[in-house]
Amino acid sequence: MFLEKLDWRYAVKKMDPTKAVAQADVDLIIEAIRMAPTSSGLQPFELLVITNDEIRARIQKVAWNQAQITEGSHLLVFAAWDTYTEERIDAVMQHMAEERGGLTETLESYYTNLKKMYLPREAEVNFEHAARQSYIALGFAMAAAAELGVDCTPMEGFDPVKVDEILGLSAKGLRSVTLLPLGVRAETGDWLKDMPKVRKSKSEMVSEIA
Amino acid sequence: MFLEKLDWRYAVKKMDPTKAVAQADVDLIIEAIRMAPTSSGLQPFELLVITNDEIRARIQKVAWNQAQITEGSHLLVFAAWDTYTEERIDAVMQHMAEERGGLTETLESYYTNLKKMYLPREAEVNFEHAARQSYIALGFAMAAAAELGVDCTPMEGFDPVKVDEILGLSAKGLRSVTLLPLGVRAETGDWLKDMPKVRKSKSEMVSEIA
Repeated sequence: MFLEKLDWRYAVKKMDPTKAVAQADVDLIIEAIRMAPTSSGLQPFELLVITNDEIRARIQKVAWNQAQITEGSHLLVFAAWDTYTEERIDAVMQHMAEERGGLTETLESYYTNLKKMYLPREAEVNFEHAARQSYIALGFAMAAAAELGVDCTPMEGFDPVKVDEILGLSAKGLRSVTLLPLGVRAETGDWLKDMPKVRKSKSEMVSEIA
Repeated sequence: MFLEKLDWRYAVKKMDPTKAVAQADVDLIIEAIRMAPTSSGLQPFELLVITNDEIRARIQKVAWNQAQITEGSHLLVFAAWDTYTEERIDAVMQHMAEERGGLTETLESYYTNLKKMYLPREAEVNFEHAARQSYIALGFAMAAAAELGVDCTPMEGFDPVKVDEILGLSAKGLRSVTLLPLGVRAETGDWLKDMPKVRKSKSEMVSEIA
């Protein structure tokens, strides 16, 4: 159960490069990402799953040399749409129409209104909104990994422009947002492994209005 | 298991106002939120858990009148820090030092660097970064809810300035980001309930670089 793994999981600092995450587990984590909810069903991001050593080594160099990128077995890269476009939103609408018995007036009017709101906005505002959605999927990925007993380390510490270059993301209208190496925690050499997890107390974080 | 509930969960459009989510389940969902990872361990958001009918009715009015806000039994509001400040970051650092055996040079230097990066930035940039972190917790909340068989409906469709006013968030240096009503799906009257879930195929969303 995911809820029993909340304390087990942590942002592993040292992964064992001789061990790999089972492909079946990687596939389940990808499925959680694919099924994660997003605003208006847009799913405005793509996922890159990198096992290639050379590409991962190049990414590591522009990510503060964080070792998990190459010591893990799989590197997930969440890349959000650089903006919303008519074409992208229409494709989502058409897909919904196909799956749900046709393009109804309600469906069309919903996405027409969405386009009226999103298309005039600056690309940066739309990208930011798309990036937020990818964080829901990042949360789902980490929940799935915890449930499966798979280690992972979420990362924002990298040069997104350089990662976009390495992966050719700009040409696809994408911008890298987060990295998530998957791997197996090393038995020794991780300074964080035996540290207590630090979180705010419930009373610090939560207010009840009854 | 969370992974077995990916298809069960959906953004419920009609909740049964005569049914309530068990408090034990609400507590577990809150715990998942509290334990969710965030950038540099900052946990830069707070959670409001609203059962008060009058407050929820006022929020519903500035949220496109979405019925789940009052038909559910609990309304979660994720409210992110409006910016990063020295005081906020120092409090996190001090808390870490208390839990992990003192303020080491490494710990202090990490957060000193973070302050050098965050404090000169515009509040809006910092808020956006904090808001993103709250989406990881939103993902964890929805994963926990699915695992427990609790229904929920994530919402961005509301006037955040008005919600901030209703909840007095500005005075606390917070800005509302998302709403998550928890409740029990109504047996009838939800147009989405029996619709197929629509998601991109794996081949549309995922690229492998081997």
